[in-house]
Amino acid sequence: MVNEFLGPRKIITGENSIRAIPNEMKNLGGSHPLIVTDDGIIKAGILKQLISVLDEQKVEYKIFPEVESDPEFAIMEKGKKVFMEGQHDILIALGGGSSIDTAKVIGLLATNEGTVKDYLGIIILKNDPIPVIAIPTTAGTGSEVTHMAMATDKENNLKRLIKGPQLIPKSAVLDPTLLKSLPPLTISYTGIDAFTHGLESFLSTRSTLITQQLSLGAIKLIYHALIPFKENPKDTELASKMLHGSCLAGIAFTNAELGAIHALASPLAGQYHLPHGLSCALLLCNVLKVNRDAALEKYAILFETLGFSRNGLSDQKCADKLIEAIDGLVRKLGIPSSLKSFGVKPQALPQMVEYVLKSPALTANPKKLNREEVESLFNSVC
Amino acid sequence: MVNEFLGPRKIITGENSIRAIPNEMKNLGGSHPLIVTDDGIIKAGILKQLISVLDEQKVEYKIFPEVESDPEFAIMEKGKKVFMEGQHDILIALGGGSSIDTAKVIGLLATNEGTVKDYLGIIILKNDPIPVIAIPTTAGTGSEVTHMAMATDKENNLKRLIKGPQLIPKSAVLDPTLLKSLPPLTISYTGIDAFTHGLESFLSTRSTLITQQLSLGAIKLIYHALIPFKENPKDTELASKMLHGSCLAGIAFTNAELGAIHALASPLAGQYHLPHGLSCALLLCNVLKVNRDAALEKYAILFETLGFSRNGLSDQKCADKLIEAIDGLVRKLGIPSSLKSFGVKPQALPQMVEYVLKSPALTANPKKLNREEVESLFNSVC
Repeated sequence: MVNEFLGPRKIITGENSIRAIPNEMKNLGGSHPLIVTDDGIIKAGILKQLISVLDEQKVEYKIFPEVESDPEFAIMEKGKKVFMEGQHDILIALGGGSSIDTAKVIGLLATNEGTVKDYLGIIILKNDPIPVIAIPTTAGTGSEVTHMAMATDKENNLKRLIKGPQLIPKSAVLDPTLLKSLPPLTISYTGIDAFTHGLESFLSTRSTLITQQLSLGAIKLIYHALIPFKENPKDTELASKMLHGSCLAGIAFTNAELGAIHALASPLAGQYHLPHGLSCALLLCNVLKVNRDAALEKYAILFETLGFSRNGLSDQKCADKLIEAIDGLVRKLGIPSSLKSFGVKPQALPQMVEYVLKSPALTANPKKLNREEVESLFNSVC
Repeated sequence: MVNEFLGPRKIITGENSIRAIPNEMKNLGGSHPLIVTDDGIIKAGILKQLISVLDEQKVEYKIFPEVESDPEFAIMEKGKKVFMEGQHDILIALGGGSSIDTAKVIGLLATNEGTVKDYLGIIILKNDPIPVIAIPTTAGTGSEVTHMAMATDKENNLKRLIKGPQLIPKSAVLDPTLLKSLPPLTISYTGIDAFTHGLESFLSTRSTLITQQLSLGAIKLIYHALIPFKENPKDTELASKMLHGSCLAGIAFTNAELGAIHALASPLAGQYHLPHGLSCALLLCNVLKVNRDAALEKYAILFETLGFSRNGLSDQKCADKLIEAIDGLVRKLGIPSSLKSFGVKPQALPQMVEYVLKSPALTANPKKLNREEVESLFNSVC
């Protein structure tokens, strides 16, 4: 089987690496950026950090602060309008996956005709999009290095995928000093999302020797750093490990696909606007149990990757201990164990099951799941 | 400290993935390729495999088969002339590092004024070079994903570096079926070169959390696949592991630098035209011993990465066992244990030591080495 791997472009890392942004803008031929961000980033004082770097270099910028979580088509189209009116030539995304995804879509709409609806699915753009410099402020989605964006279709209550090689941001800036004020719950949700990206991309039937090494690197970093980082978000070494972990996982899954956890989490987000990481956390061990026998050898590799010694244990035993260890991680994060309190009612399930059965992520899941198995997985968390 | 990581572009992998080349050429806007290769590739029947794919799709190509190992400026400039005369629009490099490096330099000369001499060192090109599709036929240099090329300065008997972000090939094609006829000695030399890339980039003081994961992935793949592959070069699964390992190591070292092994191997190649992998193999354990105490913790990580259980061993003990294991690998490869039989005379050493002391690779070595230490390392292998 022939596979294609698309690498990230430039990744700039290190404490205070946002100071490299004015120069990086110049490298990319930009001088008048639109900053795509959200209200939370402004309140946390993170935007101020970026602005002081730009002011110091006398860069003229404007801010589009209207991104919301699970951004809708309309917000992206409004962002494009602001971009065109301001005659900007480069985009700086500052935030989580929502801001970065919004900037990607603004970038493609600014150089190509049509609206978001015209670009759903796998796309090759006629014109190269506006360059995006992506600065993640959470260690979660990996969107700073993926060639995809999620846009929420409000009409149908669905998250829709836009995917194409031209969507990879031209630069990703991983600056751990920007994560200092992250609330513990956000650390848990985004961290478990990144961990799940690593796990599912490794177990994916479309993983390759390249993506597998990236996935394992990501899993190892996140598994050991997540709880300590939650307890010490001001520790930039831990923040850096988490940022690198989610970035590596991003490079892996954008090339190798994900699996059943993400296939099931997507309609939960679309229908109930649940935090994506919460859905991932709840589904994580349930799906790992279902997939266990279809990927025993890989489970044993994961077990050793997390730092456990095999000591002659069988693959089966390693797999069980792996699931135990991951269950322990989720418990330590203090994530609720059911979606009931979030208003997820079993009545909505049939429609969600239909959606999952058509998901591309499900085709990469190590075990082929049928309708009953998907239904039963939903029931296990609702 | 702020670091920059440059990702590879597209990596196409899998058995018979060279069949994707006509389409990939189109993606890159090319239709009339110059194939850069060498006589050995033609004799081994590998060029024929590529040509039959091109013929099938009625692609008109020409062949520049004059690449030699450690290619000199003149060959690269001749290649540029052939490229211009043939009005080609894309380069296909088929071979080891020499062919891929030559294609990179032809590509930059074809769109920028001047000769090879004008582009030595770190460069930003005025014009983007001609796109290169790189098809490695050995698992060694990783040149298919690096942003550098080595050119031999015959006048001064030196290998010179050309390095810049625009030199990364647009596509790398890792097709394990092309490695079937590799002679065992070539497998040993190129494999140990790739292994050394993984090791030195991991130990480099300029490694990052991203490059370290790539290095470890490479080391693991190569350590376990090299000997079996040497014994069964027709086994495409092993060939694939080796190709992926050398590719991952390439991505790592092009971003993280190397160390003393490569710093010392370079003048040995320039002065005596020794196979680069031979120099690496001989220097490997000697340098590992010298660096041991400067990177104990990393040695322990390497020990576990190779699949050994710590079982409570100290870092020191792990480091010693690591060196033993790597020494065992080199011995199993049947590589000569001294350079004496190759005509390396101690008289040339002072000049080589001077060269090494100015090498950028030496600055990334975990232990800072002085003149006496470099001299003593040369003496240990001559």
